[in-house]
Amino acid sequence: MSTFQRLESPSFQSSCELCREAGGAMIFQSAHWRVIRAEDAAFPAFYRVVWRAHVAEWSDLSLAHQAEVMGVVTAVERVLREALAPTKINLASLGNVTPHLHWHVIARFDWDSHYPAPVWAAAAREVAPPPVERLGLALDALDARVARAVAALAPGA
Amino acid sequence: MSTFQRLESPSFQSSCELCREAGGAMIFQSAHWRVIRAEDAAFPAFYRVVWRAHVAEWSDLSLAHQAEVMGVVTAVERVLREALAPTKINLASLGNVTPHLHWHVIARFDWDSHYPAPVWAAAAREVAPPPVERLGLALDALDARVARAVAALAPGA
Repeated sequence: MSTFQRLESPSFQSSCELCREAGGAMIFQSAHWRVIRAEDAAFPAFYRVVWRAHVAEWSDLSLAHQAEVMGVVTAVERVLREALAPTKINLASLGNVTPHLHWHVIARFDWDSHYPAPVWAAAAREVAPPPVERLGLALDALDARVARAVAALAPGA
Repeated sequence: MSTFQRLESPSFQSSCELCREAGGAMIFQSAHWRVIRAEDAAFPAFYRVVWRAHVAEWSDLSLAHQAEVMGVVTAVERVLREALAPTKINLASLGNVTPHLHWHVIARFDWDSHYPAPVWAAAAREVAPPPVERLGLALDALDARVARAVAALAPGA
């Protein structure tokens, strides 16, 4: 299932971008979470695991829901490692701008524009040809691998 | 237990800073992990949960060890929320510079030097008086609360 649907829930906040919109290219949606690709040209293999209900902080989730989310994060990380052999994986849940729980899962390469700095720091270099051409895999093929991996974790899968 | 001890393990890498050194102010060390405070003047309530064995990526940990680590991360987050009522908690595991698994747990405030940008971005403002004076709690008292919370999670506790 890869169509974004707003969650019908008392937690819905019309002022929250991640309640209202997918927030990126839809990869897969389960009852509790969705996986999107961030569509960042500098970091093409940049996915997000978004908890569908509006929850601000990690510690607001129950232990079972934390385990469910991290299972999805781990599955995305494993696909990126196996498909791309990145220099490093970066994981983060920040939410300062959009305080709706989401995890960034980013494949980093020693040739990328910011390496070894975090993606939020200043760029260290220009990259040509475009990063997407250096992945060694088409993005739709990568998306399909991510979708398969996380679909297997969806309740009822 | 708050003294740093190198882990006697085949995973020890003498070239790795987080194998060789605590990496910050020691808060607590268990058999598998330690908690340190980053000693960052701009972000005084910045802790790290470091896996003691040298492991590069999150998905290299077993499911049981992942749950153990996130239990510690969650406990640190809860103490920061309860003690400081921060604007937001930021969590991240990057490791581009030091690829030895560690989680950043950072209390962010709308008055801090970078808010709402990540701590790795450019500063947005100067903060005076110093951030540590604005926490409303002495750092040693905060450290003690963090230590108590994570000690309860250590095997054998």
